[in-house]
Amino acid sequence: MIQSIFQQVQAKHPLVHNITNYVTVNDCANITLAAGGSPIMADDINEVEDIISICDALVINIGTLNERTIASMFKAGKKANQLNKPVILDPVGAGASSLRTNMAVKLLNEIQFAVVRGNMSEIKALALGSGTTKGVDADINDALSTENLSETVSFAQEFSRKTGAVIAMTGKDDLVACTDTAYLVHNGHSMMSKITGSGCMLTSLIGVYTGANANQILQAVVSAVALMGFAGERAYQKEIGTASFRVRLIDAVSLLTAAQLEEGGKIEII
Amino acid sequence: MIQSIFQQVQAKHPLVHNITNYVTVNDCANITLAAGGSPIMADDINEVEDIISICDALVINIGTLNERTIASMFKAGKKANQLNKPVILDPVGAGASSLRTNMAVKLLNEIQFAVVRGNMSEIKALALGSGTTKGVDADINDALSTENLSETVSFAQEFSRKTGAVIAMTGKDDLVACTDTAYLVHNGHSMMSKITGSGCMLTSLIGVYTGANANQILQAVVSAVALMGFAGERAYQKEIGTASFRVRLIDAVSLLTAAQLEEGGKIEII
Amino acid sequence: MIQSIFQQVQAKHPLVHNITNYVTVNDCANITLAAGGSPIMADDINEVEDIISICDALVINIGTLNERTIASMFKAGKKANQLNKPVILDPVGAGASSLRTNMAVKLLNEIQFAVVRGNMSEIKALALGSGTTKGVDADINDALSTENLSETVSFAQEFSRKTGAVIAMTGKDDLVACTDTAYLVHNGHSMMSKITGSGCMLTSLIGVYTGANANQILQAVVSAVALMGFAGERAYQKEIGTASFRVRLIDAVSLLTAAQLEEGGKIEII
Repeated sequence: MIQSIFQQVQAKHPLVHNITNYVTVNDCANITLAAGGSPIMADDINEVEDIISICDALVINIGTLNERTIASMFKAGKKANQLNKPVILDPVGAGASSLRTNMAVKLLNEIQFAVVRGNMSEIKALALGSGTTKGVDADINDALSTENLSETVSFAQEFSRKTGAVIAMTGKDDLVACTDTAYLVHNGHSMMSKITGSGCMLTSLIGVYTGANANQILQAVVSAVALMGFAGERAYQKEIGTASFRVRLIDAVSLLTAAQLEEGGKIEII
Repeated sequence: MIQSIFQQVQAKHPLVHNITNYVTVNDCANITLAAGGSPIMADDINEVEDIISICDALVINIGTLNERTIASMFKAGKKANQLNKPVILDPVGAGASSLRTNMAVKLLNEIQFAVVRGNMSEIKALALGSGTTKGVDADINDALSTENLSETVSFAQEFSRKTGAVIAMTGKDDLVACTDTAYLVHNGHSMMSKITGSGCMLTSLIGVYTGANANQILQAVVSAVALMGFAGERAYQKEIGTASFRVRLIDAVSLLTAAQLEEGGKIEII
Repeated sequence: MIQSIFQQVQAKHPLVHNITNYVTVNDCANITLAAGGSPIMADDINEVEDIISICDALVINIGTLNERTIASMFKAGKKANQLNKPVILDPVGAGASSLRTNMAVKLLNEIQFAVVRGNMSEIKALALGSGTTKGVDADINDALSTENLSETVSFAQEFSRKTGAVIAMTGKDDLVACTDTAYLVHNGHSMMSKITGSGCMLTSLIGVYTGANANQILQAVVSAVALMGFAGERAYQKEIGTASFRVRLIDAVSLLTAAQLEEGGKIEII
């Protein structure tokens, strides 16, 4: 599966519109290029409709949302829906403030998302309308385990039913679910939580992968999740510092071949 | 001293709210994580009170201040004061424009800061209400010397008396002063002035260190200042380029142990 | 030529005011420092006149323009004109939205630019008032070739006549033209298109170089273009990842000597 999804990306070089935060925006642009896409960051309300019109997908990331960019998110998302282009939501920090939780819920109500990607705390905050998110990181109690797996899969599938989106709930292990199917991805490295932007970068990668594979959204998401985790594994070295790890993470995305990813991806259908 | 301050950070993993500039925000987030804290950048006026409520400290950095974020700085700072959480000011470029100088002075008047961290030009601009700052870098004449040491210590202590804040005046040598005590920290490397963000990153580190040591603000500031300078020393290599130096600087923060820092810190009480 | 231009930069350490985008702003600040300049990023309308007054040049980059920063661009540009300081325009993504194209054209009408630097698609969009820009990257059909060289030089010189600015049209090969002279610069590496910010960084370098050589704008632009390209060549290594390439690119700028650049620059007058 991964191989053909990957090859579509290389063939199409999808152009991805990101309305995103100013913390990790440079990493998101660079990983988009590393993966074979082309990024454009644009958030003024007077241009977002033009921009999404020439793009293959839209990523909405609420990491540093504000009144001005919130309005642009709604406008761009609605236009993307009209044009049938995949829209991906990263509800960064949902649960950490009412503004974030409420705006993310409102976005889900008014825009048809193809994918929602967050950590377990964020996804719970969206589904329940409140949360215990520790800032932008997942609450320590919010992690997949053998005990909660079956319950969590049901929860994600129910949320997928409600929103019509593929749900990617990422952490130590990653769960990707739609209404009737679910995948576990076991790639990744704990160092990824020691740098900012691992989650944002993955969401931008999902923009690239769905932008080039709009008729295979679920498979595109699983492939992007495996790619990011596998790149994390390859980036790690003994006694590496966090900034070097970040450089090597983006390097790994830029250097990976379809065959390496196909072999390295630890994907389980459940 | 440093060792126990350091261990508190590792034990508490403080969550730090940063209202900061878009130039160095990614470095600030990454160094916060490298040091054992967790960053959240949030500047919308409708969420800053929620965000500071779940955090351990607030960093206000005026590097790219604007009308919208200025209002958020005041709101967040006042809320942090109500909640007795340490607030740290980085008056980036105070002296370079009336807006910066006036806003920094107004912040000092309306919010009780635990710490103010700037270069000597910025601190002078704040104390005198005007300045000769060369943009965001210190004026070349503004540096600690044997000649001006005693006068500068008195100046910093007077400013500490006036503001109620610990004053960290950093440069080639760093001075940390409260009303009745002063420390000199002799760590650091000249390459730190060849990258953007050394000052901003230190201020974010001070947020992490005071967030985990709210009852020992002075010691927390001295430790963070020594940590940053010592990381700069370890980052340096012969013939290194500036971008590699920056990577190695954050790496060093992520790899340092309490024992190494205790041994490497060049702290003098005066 | 390059050597004396380069030495002026090292002697003057020009302070450069950037009103720029939040995607590549950190790279722009770091490359400014690497090249021997000092950056200040400031975009609030209430301080841009103060800031440009203490600076040697102004860079206007529309990469993430919005209503608020557009107003600041006009105000800063007009003040810089009054003060006779060089103003450089980077029309990022002109052609990708009406807002970008129209605003870039309006800036050109109301402000006297010393230099306009963009890829061929962006420059065409400005000159023709519409475009086929692929987001922020050049359209694949927009590249210098033996076939279109003579026509493109005439086009650039006509645009220089119309705007009064030196035109730097960069890509695989770079063309720098004023009304009666044109240079080709053959430095560079294809990896530069695999990272975000190569163009923005070059524009900031042009700010540094013209800021220190205000009476030799054309030569300063040619030198900055050669410097950036030559740094790209030195940054490349076999099988390098994109993030490592970016680190090595800024490293190269920080480490290059005047003599190396003089020898490495591949400049042709046509």
